[in-house]
This record gives sequence, structure tokens and C-alpha cells, in this order.
Amino acid sequence: MKIDVIISADYIREDLIKDKIVVVIDVLRATSVITTALKNGAKSVIPFLTVEEAFEKQKELGKENCVLGGERKAVKIEGFDFSNSPLEYSKDIIKDKHLIITTTNGTRALTGCRMAERIFVGAMINGGALAKKLADINKDVVIVNAGTNGQFSMDDYICTGFIINELMKYTSKLDMTDIAKAAAITYKEHRDIVDYIKEARHYNVMMGLNLQKDIEYCIQKNITQVVPEYVDNHIIGIS
Amino acid sequence: MKIDVIISADYIREDLIKDKIVVVIDVLRATSVITTALKNGAKSVIPFLTVEEAFEKQKELGKENCVLGGERKAVKIEGFDFSNSPLEYSKDIIKDKHLIITTTNGTRALTGCRMAERIFVGAMINGGALAKKLADINKDVVIVNAGTNGQFSMDDYICTGFIINELMKYTSKLDMTDIAKAAAITYKEHRDIVDYIKEARHYNVMMGLNLQKDIEYCIQKNITQVVPEYVDNHIIGIS
Repeated sequence: MKIDVIISADYIREDLIKDKIVVVIDVLRATSVITTALKNGAKSVIPFLTVEEAFEKQKELGKENCVLGGERKAVKIEGFDFSNSPLEYSKDIIKDKHLIITTTNGTRALTGCRMAERIFVGAMINGGALAKKLADINKDVVIVNAGTNGQFSMDDYICTGFIINELMKYTSKLDMTDIAKAAAITYKEHRDIVDYIKEARHYNVMMGLNLQKDIEYCIQKNITQVVPEYVDNHIIGIS
Repeated sequence: MKIDVIISADYIREDLIKDKIVVVIDVLRATSVITTALKNGAKSVIPFLTVEEAFEKQKELGKENCVLGGERKAVKIEGFDFSNSPLEYSKDIIKDKHLIITTTNGTRALTGCRMAERIFVGAMINGGALAKKLADINKDVVIVNAGTNGQFSMDDYICTGFIINELMKYTSKLDMTDIAKAAAITYKEHRDIVDYIKEARHYNVMMGLNLQKDIEYCIQKNITQVVPEYVDNHIIGIS
């Protein structure tokens, strides 16, 4: 079982992910939001690259059946119901509804991976369950970090290391590229995630916007068994 | 002074390096070889992408004036004088001669950076002197890791972290991207380089070829003040 890592959405290439099992990570915050919405009963999450596409989908599904969420520059989009905070997607808000979402980095990474064999959504909050699913499937995995504005992001990288460490609990037969090994080593040395990501640009942008509670939520480990999978333009929760 | 890192020759993009001060690193072994040859009195080092170009240059310069060096798959090229081992380029071999070199990853990274404002060659053996030069120039720096066959390589990455740590001795005003910070942190946690790179694929390929002495040589810190610079298709030693 080979494990590779792509360090940002800018570096997704068809030859690297075609016919592979892909995990997309945007831990602060898109993939934590998606996982949380599904955990709390969302029917599906539908990611879009643009705000216009999101509004069109809302019209198609009917306002009563969906919630519009996402961000640009880490803040809520005008006319949207909610921002990109996982804390907003509680059961009373999202249960039995579709979450239509557009974010700066996460949705770009997701839509960019559509030629993969299967696409899962990873975060700290579901890392253990995701690792178990990958071990069960037992095929080559590429972990795609959304990154921040096309750049490597320390928060996605350490989340990648966490998921690889969780995967090691199920199999000792991981054939890792150097970047996968480096991520795994970094997590082992910084199990207290904040100690590492406090250096990250994106973390500091979020702290500047008073989003500390979102960060505290997103760095929790294994609080849900939900494994989101992106199938036919919808992300659904499997477990 | 901004510091960014490109993790492999595959990811060099004009918009990232244009008008920047670039440092190319292929610590095992091309940039260690280049630095060593210049330290030992080579007139210049001339990198080429292909074996054919290297032979043509040899013809042009005359056999008595140059040495042909390099590797494919880490071993010597047929008809070449020497391989890609820094231990081969002693004073009696290289003094007052041109080294014509072609390697799998290093020369590709060097020639790929030609649109940069200035291009320096970095390794562990000259990291301190190089850092001082960068601090003197005081412009934005992009450190380009050659990587291995287009992939991130742990050895180049930790050498990058070493050079950034050396640079921190001269200035506290470094504006680092996440990948630069991550490399710097990794070096701080693995000052004993072997402890880290023993996991690297390329390290293990080299150990399999009995190149342990080359590795021991290449991971020495600051044994020379030579800073190679790539100017008009030649690399010359400045100090």
C-alpha cells in the first residue's frame, strides 16, 4: 500500500491521482465543516468552485431543502446562510438538508481530484475512522492537502501526518514517499497540534479574525466515525 | 526578506522564481560535488541536462582542460571520467580545470532556474557561507530543492532547514512561508542529519550502492566558505 502526499491544490496532477484512492484535507476548515455537517445529519454536501454555482444550486434544490455555506478570505459570503465555521452546522440547522458549500481552498482541491478512483474527505476529527476505511480498501492512497492559496499549509500537513499515524495502527506495510514519511514524523513530534500550527500563516489569519474556537474544534482527534466520500458531485457520509 | 521553498524540480514555476535570489540544493550529491570542485580549484562547473551536451562541451574545451562528471541512476556514465561522488574531485584532479557535469536531478533544477535574478548553489558543506551571502544581498530568496525524480526528498529538505537556521543568525527579519518554517523546524529537531535522512528513499538507494562515505562527506556542516554562483551557463566560486 503506497502512500503519497500532494502539498497543495496547485500541485494536483492527473498522473499522480488517476485511479488512486484520494483523501482531501483542508483541516482549517472546509473538510472539518463537511465532516461535521454529515455527522449532524446533512443529506449531502455539494461543493462548488464559485459563488454563482452555489446560488444556482440553491435555486434548483429550493431554499427550504438546503443551507448555503462557505467563505472568501475566511469570512462569510454575502447572501449565504453561514460561514465556514464547523460550529454553525449543528443538528437543528443541517439535519436532512443539503449543504451547498464554496471555500477558497477546500472545494478547489475536491473538484480538482475528480479523476481519482475514490475521493474521501479527511480531518483531525475523523482521522481514525478514515484510516480504518483506507486500510479496509487496501489500495494506493494519495493524500491531497488543499493548502492555502496554492501554497503548502502546516495545518493540512500535520493532519496528514496524523492520518498516516492512524493508518499505521492497521498495517505495517506502508510504502511511503519521502513527503509522507516527513509528515508522519512531524506529527509524531507534535502530537499537540497547536504547538506546531501556531507558526502557520493560516492559523494566524484565523486568530486575527477571532476564530480560536473553530481551531479548537478542528484539532480534536477522532470525535466522529463519519467518513465523507465524494461521489457524483455530492459528498455523502459513510461509516 | 521573504523565504520560500520549492520542494522539487517538478514544481519550479517562472512566477515563483522570476527576479528572486534562488538557491538550488541537491545535497546528495550534485550541489555538494559542485561546491567541492570549486573549493578544490576548478575554474568553473558547467551543468548540462544531457550526456550528449556534456560530450560536445568536452570536445569544444579540449579533453586536457576539463573533467567529465555525473551520474544516471546514481552510477557513473559510460565514457565519463568520474561519477557524482564529491570525494573524487580532489585538487590534483580538478585544479584549473572545468568540470562538465550532468546529473539526474541537480542539473535539471539548476537549468530550470535560469530566469531567476541570481542562482546560488547550496549544500550542508557551505550552508553558513551561503547564508551570510544571502543576508548581505538582503532580497527575497527561494530555495529550490532538486528532489529525487521530481519528488520531494528528505535530504534536500533538511539541508534547506539548515540553511534557513544559518540565515537566522544574521537576521531576525525573515518572512517565511509555511514550507520554509516547517523545514526550519525539522532541522532544529534533527541537527544530527542522519537520524532524519535514514528514512529517505535516496539515502537508502545510496547505501545500497555502498556510497556511505559520500553521505558522511555531504552531511558535514560548514567545511568551506565557497559559495558557487551560476552565471552565464557557468558556475563559479565566489566567497
